[in-house]
Amino acid sequence: MKRILIGRPRKLRELQDQRLSKLKALPILSSDALSSVAYGYEAALAELAFAGVAGLWIGLPIAALIVILLITLILSYLQVIKAYPGGGGAYAVASDQFGPVAGLVAGSALLIDYTLTVAVSVSSGIAAITSAFPNLLPWTVPMCIISILVIMIMNLRGLRESASAFMWPTYAFVFSMLVLIVVGFFHLQHAGWRYPTTPHMGSLPKDITLIVLLRAFASGCSALTGIEAISNATPQFRDPVIKNAQKTLLWLGLLLGLMFAGTAYLAYIHGLQYNPNVTVLSRLAAVNFQSGFFYYFIQFSTFAVLILAANTSYSGFPLLAALMARDKFMPHMFMLRGDRLGYSNGIIVLSTLAIIMIVIFNGQTNALIPLYAIGVFLSFTLAQTGLVKRWAKMKPDGWVWRGAINTFGAFLSAIVTVVFSVAKFTQGAWIVLIVLPLLIMWGLKVRKHYEAVANDLRIDMARIKPCPHKTIVIVPIAGVNRVVASTLSYALSISDQVIAFYVGFEDDAIVRMEDKWEQWNTGIRLVTARSQYRSIVRPLMRFLATIENWEGEPDHVIVAIPQFIAKHWWQNLLHNQTSLMLRTILLYRKDIVVTTVPYHLTR
Amino acid sequence: MKRILIGRPRKLRELQDQRLSKLKALPILSSDALSSVAYGYEAALAELAFAGVAGLWIGLPIAALIVILLITLILSYLQVIKAYPGGGGAYAVASDQFGPVAGLVAGSALLIDYTLTVAVSVSSGIAAITSAFPNLLPWTVPMCIISILVIMIMNLRGLRESASAFMWPTYAFVFSMLVLIVVGFFHLQHAGWRYPTTPHMGSLPKDITLIVLLRAFASGCSALTGIEAISNATPQFRDPVIKNAQKTLLWLGLLLGLMFAGTAYLAYIHGLQYNPNVTVLSRLAAVNFQSGFFYYFIQFSTFAVLILAANTSYSGFPLLAALMARDKFMPHMFMLRGDRLGYSNGIIVLSTLAIIMIVIFNGQTNALIPLYAIGVFLSFTLAQTGLVKRWAKMKPDGWVWRGAINTFGAFLSAIVTVVFSVAKFTQGAWIVLIVLPLLIMWGLKVRKHYEAVANDLRIDMARIKPCPHKTIVIVPIAGVNRVVASTLSYALSISDQVIAFYVGFEDDAIVRMEDKWEQWNTGIRLVTARSQYRSIVRPLMRFLATIENWEGEPDHVIVAIPQFIAKHWWQNLLHNQTSLMLRTILLYRKDIVVTTVPYHLTR
Repeated sequence: MKRILIGRPRKLRELQDQRLSKLKALPILSSDALSSVAYGYEAALAELAFAGVAGLWIGLPIAALIVILLITLILSYLQVIKAYPGGGGAYAVASDQFGPVAGLVAGSALLIDYTLTVAVSVSSGIAAITSAFPNLLPWTVPMCIISILVIMIMNLRGLRESASAFMWPTYAFVFSMLVLIVVGFFHLQHAGWRYPTTPHMGSLPKDITLIVLLRAFASGCSALTGIEAISNATPQFRDPVIKNAQKTLLWLGLLLGLMFAGTAYLAYIHGLQYNPNVTVLSRLAAVNFQSGFFYYFIQFSTFAVLILAANTSYSGFPLLAALMARDKFMPHMFMLRGDRLGYSNGIIVLSTLAIIMIVIFNGQTNALIPLYAIGVFLSFTLAQTGLVKRWAKMKPDGWVWRGAINTFGAFLSAIVTVVFSVAKFTQGAWIVLIVLPLLIMWGLKVRKHYEAVANDLRIDMARIKPCPHKTIVIVPIAGVNRVVASTLSYALSISDQVIAFYVGFEDDAIVRMEDKWEQWNTGIRLVTARSQYRSIVRPLMRFLATIENWEGEPDHVIVAIPQFIAKHWWQNLLHNQTSLMLRTILLYRKDIVVTTVPYHLTR
Repeated sequence: MKRILIGRPRKLRELQDQRLSKLKALPILSSDALSSVAYGYEAALAELAFAGVAGLWIGLPIAALIVILLITLILSYLQVIKAYPGGGGAYAVASDQFGPVAGLVAGSALLIDYTLTVAVSVSSGIAAITSAFPNLLPWTVPMCIISILVIMIMNLRGLRESASAFMWPTYAFVFSMLVLIVVGFFHLQHAGWRYPTTPHMGSLPKDITLIVLLRAFASGCSALTGIEAISNATPQFRDPVIKNAQKTLLWLGLLLGLMFAGTAYLAYIHGLQYNPNVTVLSRLAAVNFQSGFFYYFIQFSTFAVLILAANTSYSGFPLLAALMARDKFMPHMFMLRGDRLGYSNGIIVLSTLAIIMIVIFNGQTNALIPLYAIGVFLSFTLAQTGLVKRWAKMKPDGWVWRGAINTFGAFLSAIVTVVFSVAKFTQGAWIVLIVLPLLIMWGLKVRKHYEAVANDLRIDMARIKPCPHKTIVIVPIAGVNRVVASTLSYALSISDQVIAFYVGFEDDAIVRMEDKWEQWNTGIRLVTARSQYRSIVRPLMRFLATIENWEGEPDHVIVAIPQFIAKHWWQNLLHNQTSLMLRTILLYRKDIVVTTVPYHLTR
C-alpha cells in the first residue's frame, strides 16, 4: 500500500542537485511569483467591490503603486543575490546578522506564509476551474482538498523540483497571459481605445475612504509574494552563478510587471467588477476569446501554474522546518527523512495545516488574502535590514548605493507590513498577529526544553555504568489460550518472578477463572481483581501501586502485553485496542516498563 | 486536559436508566422524528424547483401521500411495541426472526442512517441559523463541524438522555410550529383564504415527469425518519409499559402529521419556492411574524431541536455498534466503554463520519437527502416483515389484523425503499447502494476472522504450558548518555546476552562512537553499522536477520527502546518519533519482542 503510493526508497547520494539553466530556473523558481497575477489584482478589486462601477478606476493608481513597489523589491533582491550567493533565505540572513531570535521571527513568519501560499494558490487554482465549469462550484472545498492531497503524495514520493515537466505550466501561463494582453489591446485598438462598458475616471465615490484604499493596496500586494524565491536558490544556478541569478530575477520582474499591469488595465477597460463565483481573469479571457479553445487553455494553464506554485511551498516549508529543527526551534521530527529522502513530517504537517485553512475559509481565495502576505513582507523587511547591516559591516565596492537600495526596500516592506496589519486587522490579519507571536514563543520554549534535556542526559562515564536490577513481570490475562501461554513463556524467560493478573466484571467470572487456572497448573501465581468500572486499567494500576509498597520492592516492574499481528491491515482494527490503551497509560507511570509481545495470527 | 473536556469517571451502577414519564418520553424520543418537519417538505420542494411557481401545487398531493404513509407506519409501530415490549430495534427483530445475516443487513443500514441523521440534522439546524443571519452563510461548514464536535464532547462526557433539559427544545419547537400554523391560518382567513402570491392549482407543467414526482415523494419521506425511536425504547417507559409507549407514539404521529401538513399547506399558500440559502420554514416565519422576536424564537428552537435530533444518533449508533461487536460483526473496540461509561469509540467514529459527510457535501442538507432514508426504510421493511413472521408463528389474539397492518406497512416501506433507490440513484443514492453491501460484506468478514482466531487460540491445557526460553536483547543507541545507561541496565536485568547497536551516517561518527564505547568499558558488546539511507531502521533489520541465522539462535529476540516521558503533553511532540517508528516496524516482524523502557524527563 505505502510502496504503491510512495515508491521505492532512495539513496542519499541521489539528493545532489542538478544545476539549473536560466531557461529552466525561471519557470521553476518563479511559478509562485508569476501565478500571483491570478489573484493579486482581483483581491484589490474585491475591496472596492461595494462602490460599484464608479470605484473601478481607483484600481489603476493602486496597481501603479504596486508596480513601483515591485521595481524596488526587484532592485533590492538583486543585491541579496550579490551578498548571499550561497542562497540567503530570510531565516539564514536574519539569523546571520541579528542572531537566532531574529531568525526565529523570520522563520516563523515564513512557515505561516508557506502554509498560506498552499491554501491561496490551490483555492485560486480551483477558482480558475470553477469559473470555466460553474457546475463544479459547490465542490470547491473537496476539489481543493484533493489537490492538496495529490501534491502531498507526489512530494512524499520525492518529487524532483528540477524535473523538466515543471517548466511547462509556467511557460504556458506566461504565454497565455501575454497572448491575452496582446489580443486584448488589439481588440481595444479596434474599438477606438475604449468600450461602452469602460467606466469613467473621475471623482472618488465618497464611501471609498482611506482605509478602503489601504486595504485594496494591501490586498493587491499579494501579487508580489514569491519574488524572493530566486535569491533563496542562487546556488542552484549554473556558473557564473550571480550573473545568471540576477538576469533571471530581472526577467521575472519584467514578466510579472507586464502581466500584472496589462491584465489590470484590461480589467478596468472592460469594466469588470469583483464576482466571487467567476474570476476576473476568466471573464477577461471570455470577453476576448468567447468560450473557444484558447479560453479553456488559459483556465487550465492558470490552474496548472497555481498548483505548481503551491508545490513550491512543499520544498520551502519542510526544508525550513528541518533547518529550524537543527537549530532546536522546532521538534526534531522535522529532521527525519522519509524513505524517499523527503522530510515527510514537514510535508504532512504543511498539508494538514493547508487543508484546515481551506476548510475554515471555505476555499475562498479572498477570505484567505487578509492573512496572506503579512509574513512575506515581514520576512522581506528582516532580510533586507540584515543586508543593510551586512553592507555597513563589510563595505564592498558600491556599498553605499547598494545599502541605500536595500534600506529603501526594507522601509517600503516594513510600511506594507504595517499597512497590511492595520488595514486588514479586522478582516483576519488579527489571526496571524496572534499565531505568529505564539509560534515564536513556542520556538523559544522548544529550544529551552531541548537544551535542558541535553544537559540532564549528560553523564560522567567513569561513575555511571549500566548494571542489572531485580525484576518482576506482570501479565494481564483475559483467559487461558495460546496467546496467554506465549506471553507467559516470554515473561518466564526474562524474570523468575511472574504474576498473572485477571480482572473480572462479575464474581462468577472470577471464580471460573481461578478454577481454570488451578487446572492449568503452571506454577505461576494468579492475582484477580473485580472491577466496578468496565475497564481493566484501574484495577491494574491499583495492583501496580501495591507492588511498589511490597517489601524488597523490585527495581523494574515490567508489564508484558500481547499484541496480535494480523495478516491483513484491516484486521488490526479488530484487535489490540485494549493493549494500545494499556501501553499508553502505563508508560506515563514512573518506572513501569511495557513490553509488547507479538503474536502473529495465521489467518 | 482530558479530565476538563471529558469529566470524572463514572461507576457502572450509574448506568441504570431512570424510567420515563410520557411527558418526558415524547420530547426525548421523538426529537429526531419531529425535527424532520424542518427539512422534509423542503426537500420535496427542492425537486420541483426547476418547474417554477406552476409546479408548487403538486407539493400538496405529495404531502398528502406522505401523511397517509405516516399513518400506516404509526399503526405498524403500535404493533411493534406490542410484540417487542423489550425494545425491538430493527437489528434485534431481524436477527431474532431471520437470523444473524438479516440482522447484519438491518444493522448496517441503520449505522449508515445514524451517520446521515447527524449530518442532515446538523446541516439543517445550521441552515435555520444562516437563514436568520445571512452573513453567516459562508461559515456553514465550519459551524456544522463545530456543532458536531460539541455534541461529540458532550457525549464523551456521558450525556444523560433522560436529562430534563432535553425536553425543552422539542416542546419549544412543537409550540413554535403550532403557533406558526395557527397564526398562519388566522392571517389566511383574514385575507379571504388566499393571497395574491398563492399559485393556481391546475395542469401539470409538462417538464414534471413521473421520475420528478417520485423523487419529490422520496425526498419528502425524509420527514418520516425517526418514528421508530419510541418502539426501540419501549422498556424505558413507566408501567404499564406498552400502553404508555403506544399512547406516546400516537401523540408523536398526531403532532408530526399536523406540523407537516400545516407547514406544507402554508408554504403552498404563500407560493414559497425552494431557495438554497433561506429555509422554507424561515420564510414562512418571516411572512407571518416579520423579523420580530417570535421569528428568532422559531429559528433558534428549530436549530435546538435539530441539534437534539443529531444527538439521538449518539445514543443509537454506539449502542448498535456495540451490539454488533458483541455478535462479532464489528470490531471489538466498539464494546470498550470510556471512563464516563459511553462507548467512546462509537461516538468518535460517528462524529468523524458525519464530519466527512458534511465536508464532502459542503453542509448542504438537500445534497445529503438523496443518501438519507434508504437505510431507514430498509430497516422499517425488515423490522415489519420480521413482525409478520412472528405473528404467524405465535398467533396471539387478533394476530390476523395485526399481521395485515404490518404486512401493509412492510409493503409500503419496501416500495419507498425501491422508489428511493431508483429515483434518487443518480443524485447520490448510488453511494449508499455501494457502501451498504460493502459494509455487510465487511461485517461477515469480521465475524469469520474473529471465529477463526478464537479457534486458533484454543489450547489443550494439559499439553501446552508456559516455559522459559533463551533470550537476547538488542539496544539501539545514538550515543552515551543517561537514557542509554538506563536502557542498558534494564536489558542486563532481563537477559545475560545484551548487544548495543549503533548506526552512523558517516565513517567518522562510527569511529568516534567505538572509541567512546571502549572508554565507557561496560563489558557490553557494541555492534556498529553504516547507513547510506538516513534511516536506522534498515541496518537494524539487517542485523536482526543476521542474529536469526546465528548458531544456537535464541528463542526470543528482544529490542529495548527508550521512550522519553515528558512532563507536559506538548513536549511529547519533541521526542520519541524514532522510537515510535521503530516499534511499529519491528512489531510486524515475526518473533521480535519490543520493550519500551520509559525515561521520565524532569523538566
